[in-house]
Amino acid sequence: MQPFKIRILGCGSALPTLKHFASSQIIEVRDKTFMVDCGEGTQIQVRRARIHFNKIFAIFITHLHGDHCFGLIGLISTLGMLGRTAPLHIYAPKELGPILKLQMDFFCNGLEYEVTFHEVDTSVAGIVYEDKSVIVKSIPLNHRIACCGYMFSEKPTLPHIRRDMIDFYRIPECYRNNIKNGADWITPEGEVIPNNRLTEPAAAPRSYAYCSDTKYLPELYKLVYGVNLIYHEATYCSENENRASLYYHSTAKQAATVALNAKAKSLLLGHFSARYDNENAILNEARNIFPNTYLANEMSVFDVE
Amino acid sequence: MQPFKIRILGCGSALPTLKHFASSQIIEVRDKTFMVDCGEGTQIQVRRARIHFNKIFAIFITHLHGDHCFGLIGLISTLGMLGRTAPLHIYAPKELGPILKLQMDFFCNGLEYEVTFHEVDTSVAGIVYEDKSVIVKSIPLNHRIACCGYMFSEKPTLPHIRRDMIDFYRIPECYRNNIKNGADWITPEGEVIPNNRLTEPAAAPRSYAYCSDTKYLPELYKLVYGVNLIYHEATYCSENENRASLYYHSTAKQAATVALNAKAKSLLLGHFSARYDNENAILNEARNIFPNTYLANEMSVFDVE
Repeated sequence: MQPFKIRILGCGSALPTLKHFASSQIIEVRDKTFMVDCGEGTQIQVRRARIHFNKIFAIFITHLHGDHCFGLIGLISTLGMLGRTAPLHIYAPKELGPILKLQMDFFCNGLEYEVTFHEVDTSVAGIVYEDKSVIVKSIPLNHRIACCGYMFSEKPTLPHIRRDMIDFYRIPECYRNNIKNGADWITPEGEVIPNNRLTEPAAAPRSYAYCSDTKYLPELYKLVYGVNLIYHEATYCSENENRASLYYHSTAKQAATVALNAKAKSLLLGHFSARYDNENAILNEARNIFPNTYLANEMSVFDVE
Repeated sequence: MQPFKIRILGCGSALPTLKHFASSQIIEVRDKTFMVDCGEGTQIQVRRARIHFNKIFAIFITHLHGDHCFGLIGLISTLGMLGRTAPLHIYAPKELGPILKLQMDFFCNGLEYEVTFHEVDTSVAGIVYEDKSVIVKSIPLNHRIACCGYMFSEKPTLPHIRRDMIDFYRIPECYRNNIKNGADWITPEGEVIPNNRLTEPAAAPRSYAYCSDTKYLPELYKLVYGVNLIYHEATYCSENENRASLYYHSTAKQAATVALNAKAKSLLLGHFSARYDNENAILNEARNIFPNTYLANEMSVFDVE
């Protein structure tokens, strides 16, 4: 099975702490490397994680709070110094466009690669990016300012051909693609061998939903239903539920409820408030509702399974 | 003697490394806390150094390359979240003004303190800031774009009164300020006690020059002559002298030559190129010319003596 990995570069919230960097993750799926969010210090974390800077194909920004985008100009600038030539695609709420342009015009003079800005309508669930093997959709969230999460999904792949059956029936090379695409085989004697005896189904396509930042959305689960892994912000424990609501954030219990209702396989929590010295209380609160829960942590890697 | 301390928050150069943060220092002199330069990640380092964010009175930016100013907007934003009410003064080349304003208008809506922007003319050596006890002057440098260093100097203080002499001559309280300001004392018998028998000279005022980034300037020493501590960038060793010149940077030998000619007491080197795994070669090269040389390093503190 091809890798589908989530690397945590930062999972803190707005205030700097000794423990966490601001939000950023790397998503490796099929042959692509994406970044989601790019808080201050992200380029330092990319170096620390030993990720090849120039492999980053596109960056998806959820919303325009500093802890999710202040690292962008530094990263763009560094990619230039590292000799990048391939375009970099940035998907973000449209208000980022003019701010980034002014910064780049001044600080990134003579950049030898193109930065292509794609406006994202955060108010709808729609396709933001698509290639032959991956699709990325926006997930509208409610965080006072325009904000959306992103769902990264593999596209279904063709079934695998069973080598033993191909050999047994002496099916010629030129016909194998037809079989991959669903054709049966008719032997010289006229016997029909149904496709499902000649192939094995491909692994089910996997998906990862990144949901940060948002107040609790009871209907959110419908947009991420059946997701393999969901990252949901859990800035607070339930004892701070009022504060969470006031600042348009979620509690661990609320994050777990979304994962439970979505029938997700696993839940990853992050965007921890600076008030928590350790996040075990957050973890335990979520596990009471959704046992297969994990805490994000800088440099951790999670497989989407 | 009052403290005069330099705290290194970052002393790397443009590319992120596992070892160094981008340029930033804290200067504590008399009752003031200044910052010079504010590269990406500076607010993380302020936290790490356990410096009280709200003590930072003013920030001096040398030039508008990202590794010297990309941390500014994040720091300004964080100061707001921490409830700052006192104004923050920013001294920088004028081109930063509109860029910072656009960012602040968008990201720092509702900030409850004032950010006062002061344009610095980097082409002249002039007074940039002055209060009752400290003076900050610009030091023109040559780094292709507008760039200046900053010299932080204590103002001379009044001499200390000798308690033993005051008691011996029974000099009344109301006259002591006159003596501090240079007056002699005339005894009831008409004897003149000269001021220098009643006082001890105050410690000589100290100064710190921060010179980054610049190509080698053979005349620079004149502007920092007699400085106690000079920080001079030493991006490269002499083996990369051509590269240093090409990118308007300096070698360790050149930095040491400036310190030697300036008759500085000590030299602090920084702004190390990412190509050096350890900077001992840089240190040794400088010490051959100017023995009292030290390497900057994140979280190190240097006293200006």
